[in-house]
Amino acid sequence: MEEKKISEKTVRLLVALSSKMKDNAHCPYSMFPVGAALLCEDGTIFTGCNVENSAYPVGVCAEKTAISKAVSEGYRKFKAIAISSNLKDRFIVPCGNCRQFMAEFGFDIDVYMSKPDLTYTQSTVGELLPMGFEPTQLLDED
Amino acid sequence: MEEKKISEKTVRLLVALSSKMKDNAHCPYSMFPVGAALLCEDGTIFTGCNVENSAYPVGVCAEKTAISKAVSEGYRKFKAIAISSNLKDRFIVPCGNCRQFMAEFGFDIDVYMSKPDLTYTQSTVGELLPMGFEPTQLLDED
Amino acid sequence: MEEKKISEKTVRLLVALSSKMKDNAHCPYSMFPVGAALLCEDGTIFTGCNVENSAYPVGVCAEKTAISKAVSEGYRKFKAIAISSNLKDRFIVPCGNCRQFMAEFGFDIDVYMSKPDLTYTQSTVGELLPMGFEPTQLLDED
Amino acid sequence: MEEKKISEKTVRLLVALSSKMKDNAHCPYSMFPVGAALLCEDGTIFTGCNVENSAYPVGVCAEKTAISKAVSEGYRKFKAIAISSNLKDRFIVPCGNCRQFMAEFGFDIDVYMSKPDLTYTQSTVGELLPMGFEPTQLLDED
Ligand SMILES: [Zn+2]
Ligand SMILES: [Zn+2]
Ligand SMILES: [Zn+2]
Ligand SMILES: [Zn+2]
Repeated sequence: MEEKKISEKTVRLLVALSSKMKDNAHCPYSMFPVGAALLCEDGTIFTGCNVENSAYPVGVCAEKTAISKAVSEGYRKFKAIAISSNLKDRFIVPCGNCRQFMAEFGFDIDVYMSKPDLTYTQSTVGELLPMGFEPTQLLDED
Repeated sequence: MEEKKISEKTVRLLVALSSKMKDNAHCPYSMFPVGAALLCEDGTIFTGCNVENSAYPVGVCAEKTAISKAVSEGYRKFKAIAISSNLKDRFIVPCGNCRQFMAEFGFDIDVYMSKPDLTYTQSTVGELLPMGFEPTQLLDED
Repeated sequence: MEEKKISEKTVRLLVALSSKMKDNAHCPYSMFPVGAALLCEDGTIFTGCNVENSAYPVGVCAEKTAISKAVSEGYRKFKAIAISSNLKDRFIVPCGNCRQFMAEFGFDIDVYMSKPDLTYTQSTVGELLPMGFEPTQLLDED
Repeated sequence: MEEKKISEKTVRLLVALSSKMKDNAHCPYSMFPVGAALLCEDGTIFTGCNVENSAYPVGVCAEKTAISKAVSEGYRKFKAIAISSNLKDRFIVPCGNCRQFMAEFGFDIDVYMSKPDLTYTQSTVGELLPMGFEPTQLLDED
C-alpha cells in the first residue's frame, strides 16, 4: 500500500538486537524475558528489556524501556520497533499498556513482532490500537 | 453478524450509569472525569470512575475500577462495559492499559463508548486490542 | 501518643475481612493472593483483592482495588486499611505504589498488616511513605 | 554512621545532570518536568526524565526511566540517584511507585532530592520505603 518505511535488512537488524536484549531482562517473577529495539527517524537505535518488580504492577515492559530511554536522550520521532521473547510458537505482541505508550509518539510507528528463530510479522501502532486515544485528546478540551 | 448480547434498553442503562459515575471521579489533575458501567453475565452491574494520583502513573482508570470491583465481589464473566466522559465531539475510548486489563477476562466483551448526550458506538475488546496478548500465554509456557 | 482511631474489635473485623477477600483474588501468575479491607470515616467498609494481568504491570493490587471501589461509591475519607496474604512468617506490607495511592487520601490512614493467623502490626501511610509526595504538590504550582 | 558512599563532588554532578535532564521530559499534561541521574557501582551514570501519556496511568517517572535504562544496559548495582524538578520551595521526592521500583535493586541506594538551585537533601531507599516489600518475598514462598 504505502512505501516501506525501512529496508528488510534494517528490520532484521532490529529483530536481532531486540532478541539479544532478552539477556539483560530482569524477570525473576515471570521468567519471561522480552527485548525491544526502537528505530528513530535519524537511524539511531535504542534497545530495552523488561524490568520486573516483586510488586508486579510496578514493573516496566521492554517496549516502554526502549521508548523512555530514547525520549530521555532527546528523541521523539520513531519509525519502527521490534520485539522478541522466547515464545516459540507465537509472535510476541506488545501489551495494551505498551501500545498506549507507543501511541503517544505516533500511530504510524511500525511494530515488528518476532519469534526466537528471528522470523517476524509486521503491524503498526494504529492497527494494534484501533480507535486509539489521541495524545492531544485531553489537551484539546481546554 | 452474531446475535446481540444485550438489548438496546440495557445498553442505554449502562451508558446512563457510566455517565452518572463521572460525578464520583477523583480527577483534580486532568479535570477529565470518566465513568464506566460493567455488565456481568448474570445481570449484575458494577460501576467505576477514574481515581487519579498526584504521581500520575499511580492513578487508576474508570474501566479498571469497575472490573477490579467486580472481580473482588466474585465476578469473572462480563458481557459488556460502557464508558463516558465529557468529550462532546468524540466517543470516549478505553486506553490501551484498560483494553489489556479487560482482555484478561475475555476478548468478546462488548465495549460501548459514549458521548455526554448518551449516544454511543459499539466495539469489542478483541476489536480494540487486535492480536491481543492472551491471558494464558505466559502460563502455557511451563 | 494519640487516641486510637478504632477499637481492637474493629481492627480484628477488618483483618478478618481482608483475609477472607483473598478467596476472590485473580492471581494465576503470582499465585500470591492478597486481600484488603478499608474502613471509611462513617464506618462503611470496602474490600478488595489483587487482580493480576498476563502483562504483569497492568495488574491491580488489593489496596488499590479497595480504595478505588470506595471512591467510586462516593467515599474519600478513610480511617484504616487492613491487608492480608498467605505469607506465614511476615506481616504483608503494602507496595510503594499502593502507599502512594493511599497517600492521595491522607497520610494519617492507619495500615494494619496481618499474617494468616490474623495477628497484625500497625503503621500509618505517613510512616510507610515518609517525606511523601503531597497530593496538592503539583496543583500548588499554578 | 557509615562511610559516605560517594563524594560531594559526585553528588553535585548527579544533581546537575538530573536537573539538566528536565529539558528532555515529555510532560505536556502535568507541565511538571522531572529529571533523574543514577550512579552505578562502577561509576557509570544513567539519566532519565518523565515520559507522560495522555492516559495518565500509562506514563513513566524519571527515576524509572533512569533505572530501566541502566538495567537494559546490563547494570544492576546502584549507589545513588539524584532527582530534580522545578519546585522551588521543596526538595522533590520520589513517588511511592518509584521507591518500590528502586527497592528491587537495593534498599541502601542513596537518594538525593534537589531544588532548582541545586541544593539537596539525602536519604536512602530503605528510609523512604520503611518495611519495604523485599524483592525475594514472593520467590521465597516456593
Ligand atoms: Zn507491555
Ligand atoms: Zn485506561
Ligand atoms: Zn500494591
Ligand atoms: Zn515516580
